[in-house]
Amino acid sequence: MTDELAKGDRMREVFQTQLQEVQVRLVEMAEDTVRIIEKATKAFTESNVTLADEAIAIADQTGNKALALDELVIRILAKQSPVARDLRILVSALRISASLERMGALSGHIAAIARYRFPGSAVPATLIATFKEMGELDVKLAKKCVQLLKNTDVDFAREIQAEDARVDELHRHIFDVVLADDWKENAMFTVDVTLASRYHERFADHVVDISAKVSYLTTGEWNETE
Amino acid sequence: MTDELAKGDRMREVFQTQLQEVQVRLVEMAEDTVRIIEKATKAFTESNVTLADEAIAIADQTGNKALALDELVIRILAKQSPVARDLRILVSALRISASLERMGALSGHIAAIARYRFPGSAVPATLIATFKEMGELDVKLAKKCVQLLKNTDVDFAREIQAEDARVDELHRHIFDVVLADDWKENAMFTVDVTLASRYHERFADHVVDISAKVSYLTTGEWNETE
Repeated sequence: MTDELAKGDRMREVFQTQLQEVQVRLVEMAEDTVRIIEKATKAFTESNVTLADEAIAIADQTGNKALALDELVIRILAKQSPVARDLRILVSALRISASLERMGALSGHIAAIARYRFPGSAVPATLIATFKEMGELDVKLAKKCVQLLKNTDVDFAREIQAEDARVDELHRHIFDVVLADDWKENAMFTVDVTLASRYHERFADHVVDISAKVSYLTTGEWNETE
Repeated sequence: MTDELAKGDRMREVFQTQLQEVQVRLVEMAEDTVRIIEKATKAFTESNVTLADEAIAIADQTGNKALALDELVIRILAKQSPVARDLRILVSALRISASLERMGALSGHIAAIARYRFPGSAVPATLIATFKEMGELDVKLAKKCVQLLKNTDVDFAREIQAEDARVDELHRHIFDVVLADDWKENAMFTVDVTLASRYHERFADHVVDISAKVSYLTTGEWNETE
């Protein structure tokens, strides 16, 4: 009996180590998104092709990292057959890795626009300040996402969920500017600005989704009902 | 011993029934995306606000259906502790439901543009034919996605994976038209056309993602390595 208990303890210990490994990998992926969005938004507003290339190079790795993490989660599910909260943590990890992968792709798209228009600018002068603010907000949200995946604090998660409001506001503002009578820029600017604004907004959406998942898990609303 | 075997058989039977339930729900969600994209693309090219409203109403349900399906999958994982291929089928179901949810949202966005511009058109006359073709391709892909989730045939899955090439081509064509010197439409058309084209293209991407998951599962490349 004591042996059985000891065995149970050891299995529990192995499982905890595996869960920590999942968390470490999610944090690493989130740190990558910080690096990509920092370089991409700077590349975009400053027409910096070197930064754009660097952003794209990191973004290109995101898919493989997400795949490797998903494989790890599947192996743990197969070996440990977790239930209740442990199971939900692992399923959430799959969803969070999918969001982080999309964040990498979206920031890669922002960098790609900057690269494509180089040496020209993808942003007309009148919208540089707006895109700078939007970019800084995305970077801030990505950094908070790293913190959240480290501390899994529910109050912090709730706080983040309100923080994309300003990004949405800037997204709407950009459309107001583009659709106003005095917008005289050519169609290329209109297209670039429309897509870039959308990518910035979706990036923030994913951070909100991740926060919602973390607070859902932490508040224990996810109780097994049977 | 015979009792044990009989019990094992019964559990296997319960599990098979549960897997079928997951499949049925995925097919239902895919059928919803067909209805949404049919109405949305027609609404978009024909400025039909009734169809747009209908599309948006169905799209609004997609999130809850995905959530309910995910909960079902988590309950099965908890009760059955599946391994190997069964586990991978369930994890794939989570990913496929996420793609179907996004397809619902993207087609809802197409309908929303039509609704917003009504009674005007969101598409200038010169691009109506292109968007009609793109819309028909998305509808066709959505219908094939339903079939694929029913038959899970690997050859069919591979066939679908090549079929978004034409959608990508039309997506690029739309940008060529918008960025050409003789594009004289106002910024509103440019914005609407840019976003709508992007939504059509992402919709097709998700069908390809779903097909890749189905063929991955069916070819058994997903063998447990330990």
